Amino acid sequence: MTAMYLYFSKTATSTHLDFDYDGPSMKTTVPGPHSQDLLKQLGDIQNVGAINFFCNYEKSRGNYLVDVDDNRMLDLYTQISSIPIGYNHPALLKLMSNPNNMSTFVNRPALGILPPHNFPDKITQSLLSVAPSGMTRVQTMACGSCSNENAYKAMFIWYRNKERGKNTPSNEDISTCMINQAPGCPDLSILSFMGAFHGRTMGCLATTHSKSIHKLDVPSFDWPIAPFPRLQYPLEEFTRENGQEEARCLEEVEDLIVKWRQRGKPVAGIVIEPIQAEGGDNHASPDFFRSLRNIARKHGCAFHVDEVQTGGGSTGKFWAHEHWGMDDPADIVSFSKKLLTGGYYHKDELQPYRIFNTWMGDPSKNLFLLEVLNVIRRENLLEQVTHSGKALLDGLQELQVQYPGILSCARGQGTFCAIDVCDDETRNSILLKTRDKGIQLIIVYFSTCVLWTWRRHLTVSLGGSSESMGCWAP
Amino acid sequence: MTAMYLYFSKTATSTHLDFDYDGPSMKTTVPGPHSQDLLKQLGDIQNVGAINFFCNYEKSRGNYLVDVDDNRMLDLYTQISSIPIGYNHPALLKLMSNPNNMSTFVNRPALGILPPHNFPDKITQSLLSVAPSGMTRVQTMACGSCSNENAYKAMFIWYRNKERGKNTPSNEDISTCMINQAPGCPDLSILSFMGAFHGRTMGCLATTHSKSIHKLDVPSFDWPIAPFPRLQYPLEEFTRENGQEEARCLEEVEDLIVKWRQRGKPVAGIVIEPIQAEGGDNHASPDFFRSLRNIARKHGCAFHVDEVQTGGGSTGKFWAHEHWGMDDPADIVSFSKKLLTGGYYHKDELQPYRIFNTWMGDPSKNLFLLEVLNVIRRENLLEQVTHSGKALLDGLQELQVQYPGILSCARGQGTFCAIDVCDDETRNSILLKTRDKGIQLIIVYFSTCVLWTWRRHLTVSLGGSSESMGCWAP
Repeated sequence: MTAMYLYFSKTATSTHLDFDYDGPSMKTTVPGPHSQDLLKQLGDIQNVGAINFFCNYEKSRGNYLVDVDDNRMLDLYTQISSIPIGYNHPALLKLMSNPNNMSTFVNRPALGILPPHNFPDKITQSLLSVAPSGMTRVQTMACGSCSNENAYKAMFIWYRNKERGKNTPSNEDISTCMINQAPGCPDLSILSFMGAFHGRTMGCLATTHSKSIHKLDVPSFDWPIAPFPRLQYPLEEFTRENGQEEARCLEEVEDLIVKWRQRGKPVAGIVIEPIQAEGGDNHASPDFFRSLRNIARKHGCAFHVDEVQTGGGSTGKFWAHEHWGMDDPADIVSFSKKLLTGGYYHKDELQPYRIFNTWMGDPSKNLFLLEVLNVIRRENLLEQVTHSGKALLDGLQELQVQYPGILSCARGQGTFCAIDVCDDETRNSILLKTRDKGIQLIIVYFSTCVLWTWRRHLTVSLGGSSESMGCWAP
Repeated sequence: MTAMYLYFSKTATSTHLDFDYDGPSMKTTVPGPHSQDLLKQLGDIQNVGAINFFCNYEKSRGNYLVDVDDNRMLDLYTQISSIPIGYNHPALLKLMSNPNNMSTFVNRPALGILPPHNFPDKITQSLLSVAPSGMTRVQTMACGSCSNENAYKAMFIWYRNKERGKNTPSNEDISTCMINQAPGCPDLSILSFMGAFHGRTMGCLATTHSKSIHKLDVPSFDWPIAPFPRLQYPLEEFTRENGQEEARCLEEVEDLIVKWRQRGKPVAGIVIEPIQAEGGDNHASPDFFRSLRNIARKHGCAFHVDEVQTGGGSTGKFWAHEHWGMDDPADIVSFSKKLLTGGYYHKDELQPYRIFNTWMGDPSKNLFLLEVLNVIRRENLLEQVTHSGKALLDGLQELQVQYPGILSCARGQGTFCAIDVCDDETRNSILLKTRDKGIQLIIVYFSTCVLWTWRRHLTVSLGGSSESMGCWAP
């Protein structure tokens, strides 16, 4: 706690602010006794089935997450990939101590009707400064699911406007939409991929196909689902097979678009993650994505790249789709998590007139984002990610050579890395042992695991303790 | 701006903090020249069709919203009913100046897995201290739409668990849900009401039936929609007719539940607002809601009261459903807006295991909520609302007597009041004239208008300028 107060002292200099822990430090097994007490307390109020442990965020710092039992862990989980530059970054604390910023926190506006005077400037300096190629328009939202939900709506509206040409909606459109019926509520679809995760609200959930636990018991839409390539590793040994696998998936996409049009449920848009994250860290080649983008264009479908998990730099570029090397990578790019605010960029044609809600984001999150972007630039974090990512992937590859029956398919881009474990039991055991050694990892998928993070000490921390460099899932 | 800095001075006393503007002060027509410049700037980045004007939130205070052209308006709009205790309330500014709170702002956790140590206490002191009757469990969410989406999912899961008895999901359940098909994604429905507004994400939107502009072009679910009572005013003159109207609507609800069950799309839950807000301020009697709650119980449907707009005190009670006088008013109560965090309370039986997302709310909003609740208690704001609301409704009733061809159907509960205007043109003209006199009102529905607010000066401000006391919609 003491360290915290430094940031509010007027005599504190940047040197004072810039300390970091030098490694993990474990006092108990995790969850420790204090976490267990709090778990009981919260269990009376909420479902606590997914809680790992309780945190002391005041004491957490940089890459290190401190729990209520004073265990200090190297955090490769980063709050489900939503902490962009570590805990209590001095730049963000400094922002909080500036009285000029206080009003932004205490007066949350309805941004769509009464934005603050500095809103155009702040959006220009933050989100527009990292806009994907070909995009000059952006709409903020409060979270990733809301971003995708509204991106889908924008695609549906765009598609129906195309169908209507310059005509205004008919009286039948207007009256039927009020009672959920076509043509006002049309039978349009979004094409998604097996293994995809785009969120858990009902529109998003219809395009999520990662785990049954998310989808079971919730009504859904009959929309087309294409296979996502299942690449074989190491890539250099399976060039031909992987090429064929990607071609097969692309062919299936075209087939589905034709079939669903014939069924009277035309595909208004295609949604895809540059790396399927929650579905088990599945990668595809830049060629695959370039071809897919062309298929979307050819069939008149909007192309929506969901960068909620991949955006913000963890692949070594700010947006994962930059690895595809395209001038016109997408019609819509959605984001949230490490961007701190949700939202989406879009082409001019997908003008979302009629996209609206009460808050439409939160300017206090934009304020943090602006500072995060400054830090990323000032500290060359994209280069650091590339550098750390290489060390991480090299380490994972060495490990799989060392333990061939246990580890396989080491893969990654930047620090967005993963490795597969032979079975659930082994994976869970590695995960728990690793955590008790002070490394918080993430379980992503059945017999698959992933590591992701983003900080300058990553190479050192992981390189220095490579025996604990794995991660493993339920 | 100068006033703002006071709150960060250590010598400032509560007397210094507690100033308020004494009335509107208009310098230009609205939007003024600065707003118009900013509108052009933002127009290059976003759709700006719904923007009224740009605000100076630093200068805004209490009930008064100050725009960039230095116009100071009495704000009866309160950011679409989402500002609970006015602008820059000293209690909230004080919270921001406490260094112990800073970590909560800069380290947003994934609440469902790694909550902060003080989370159980903060939730107990804030949300649980105002829990609806019969409810001890609450789940936070980031916004109103996410709250309702997840409440719907909780009802679907609850309903399917009932159907399965103690059995675990079948292999067919598991495999079909991954491809959006029944029985894994079952054909269940939510019954909603014409005129309802429950949000704009795709699940919520299927239960929203207020305006076609929200729904047009977005695929939906074939779910039952019941009529909401259309009461005649003044109530005391139409007791018999209104009773019949409510009975008709209740009968229709039961018919729909039976019909949809026969169609193979059973009603898992009924969702309703205690006052239909966005749909034109439609009220019904406590008897209506009590009967509806019983119908839900009788047919095994969950009963979801959506208090996103009505919750937080503007009806004179903290929850609008308290006016029904029931010990067991609902199975789920959702909230957002004036509560600052989204979320929902629920009965034990609707245990939302499997309800999850990255952020699950935002502890920094809980921090504000705790302080807002303190202010509401300390300043007796619920009493103030009742008192101000009576003055407001009395004034509206006097006005409709004075202008019988123009104004009608004055109605309200607390300060949640509305009056109808004869036609759109008159309504729009009154709205603009009122704004230029320094009163920011809200347009809610075609030929309907609403006023809502919540502050101690309301009576004086409106009572003192009753010629401008109306409001009016697009």
